[in-house]
Amino acid sequence: MLTNDKKILIIGMGLLGGSYAEGLTDAGYYVGGLDVDKEAIRYAYDKGIITSGDTVVRKQFVEMFDIVVFAVYPKVMIEWLKKYQSFIKPGALITDVTGVKGWLINELNSFLRTDVEFVGAHPMAGREVGGVKNSTKEMFKEANFIITPTIKTTLTGMSTVRDIAEVLEFKNITTLSVEEHDEMIGFLSQLTHCIAVTLMTCKESSDLVEYTGDSFRDLTRIAKINENMWSELFLLNKEELLNQMNLFLKQFNELKETIENDDVEKMKDIMRLSTIRRSYFDR
Amino acid sequence: MLTNDKKILIIGMGLLGGSYAEGLTDAGYYVGGLDVDKEAIRYAYDKGIITSGDTVVRKQFVEMFDIVVFAVYPKVMIEWLKKYQSFIKPGALITDVTGVKGWLINELNSFLRTDVEFVGAHPMAGREVGGVKNSTKEMFKEANFIITPTIKTTLTGMSTVRDIAEVLEFKNITTLSVEEHDEMIGFLSQLTHCIAVTLMTCKESSDLVEYTGDSFRDLTRIAKINENMWSELFLLNKEELLNQMNLFLKQFNELKETIENDDVEKMKDIMRLSTIRRSYFDR
Repeated sequence: MLTNDKKILIIGMGLLGGSYAEGLTDAGYYVGGLDVDKEAIRYAYDKGIITSGDTVVRKQFVEMFDIVVFAVYPKVMIEWLKKYQSFIKPGALITDVTGVKGWLINELNSFLRTDVEFVGAHPMAGREVGGVKNSTKEMFKEANFIITPTIKTTLTGMSTVRDIAEVLEFKNITTLSVEEHDEMIGFLSQLTHCIAVTLMTCKESSDLVEYTGDSFRDLTRIAKINENMWSELFLLNKEELLNQMNLFLKQFNELKETIENDDVEKMKDIMRLSTIRRSYFDR
Repeated sequence: MLTNDKKILIIGMGLLGGSYAEGLTDAGYYVGGLDVDKEAIRYAYDKGIITSGDTVVRKQFVEMFDIVVFAVYPKVMIEWLKKYQSFIKPGALITDVTGVKGWLINELNSFLRTDVEFVGAHPMAGREVGGVKNSTKEMFKEANFIITPTIKTTLTGMSTVRDIAEVLEFKNITTLSVEEHDEMIGFLSQLTHCIAVTLMTCKESSDLVEYTGDSFRDLTRIAKINENMWSELFLLNKEELLNQMNLFLKQFNELKETIENDDVEKMKDIMRLSTIRRSYFDR
């Protein structure tokens, strides 16, 4: 349970970390921040979204906190814990915000102290701009929050993470298994980014700007991409992403064949299925 | 020139035909309508967007008009002209709204009377809903209008079609060669529809609705597709569309290889190029 006396440490004071800090501070919690970037910590402190912060990892600071939220890239999180997990208070709850879960939990299982608990979470929120200066708790209001429990997850750990999501006012809080989560992300998020990037890079198209309607803009909005974050996420979910890419390729080639063969009836069948399926996604 | 005394016949009283009719009638032109659907003609007449209309093709009616706008599928247009072109007034200007031009102009070159002139046009406007009841001239305000002249196009024909676009208040009026147009449409419009349809049909995804963020919705918005219109458009621009599909496939497979081979540097290069190119499309 996320009782009022719980102190929360946020590691990584970027867009997501800053937005968590704002939401939790506004709800009355004691929030600390850690980031190597002095400017980010200063900004968060001046804005009043953290009560204390540091740019160096110190035991006396880290051990104050009951809950530790990692708002950094998955590999940074693992490296941090390998170095500093001994600083964390026994019984503390650890959670995260990353978009890959299988890889992360495998890693954690191999070395995480058994007197702390990790409960994975994926707040499906983001903006086209990053950094603490663009952070805002408002971005959670329309977003999904997914918790990915495992057989080791306790009821207390689960309910604490759920409470965090409720305090942050996520629109929808659900749970998925680690495997379901990674498949879903491979399809809905990673495959769509691969498609957008491909469409944007498969030919020089700047001369087409003036003819571009909404379709092309819609399909390439996410082609502006943070290459450091996404290359890491792609490779940490490699197997699932390749599965989803192959599914897409198979169907794309099938559609292509109907065009090559003037197979109007099959083409129309595919289009009708597409129309029906898309209608489930209207809102 | 589109002088005020010009009478304009619109063949096909659907979404585009109705919107043309509204815009031209509101600007003071005499607009007639032809459609096999009695309800559509009655609706357009009752709404006051046509002055006269018919559901049967009669010489006395057709020969009244100086300008004939085909707002029907390309094949329907060709069939209509083959049957009824003798009804059209000598010297009349013929234009269209279809998204394929090479095929259409090849066909017309083989049989169209030499005492009438065809000037191809492509108003890049549409809505997710069809039919005259959803027509509105408002949909042109943010849209591009492309004229596709050939070596046979006269200055008069060209300026008349440009005037129509201006009266309809298109945001942007440009010209492209037939080949440039069909390549551009193959890439920006047809390929994007193929991708959206493929993404929507490559796997059963209705259980993912609640996890879907904006990315997947953006990429599949156009996956609700009119199978009769689009299968015809795809096949009439077959060669160009297949070219564009192959370009996309080549690049998609290249991105896939970087994932398979853990080639982070090349993956980041592709993503950086994508980010730079997409920035040209911001507005």
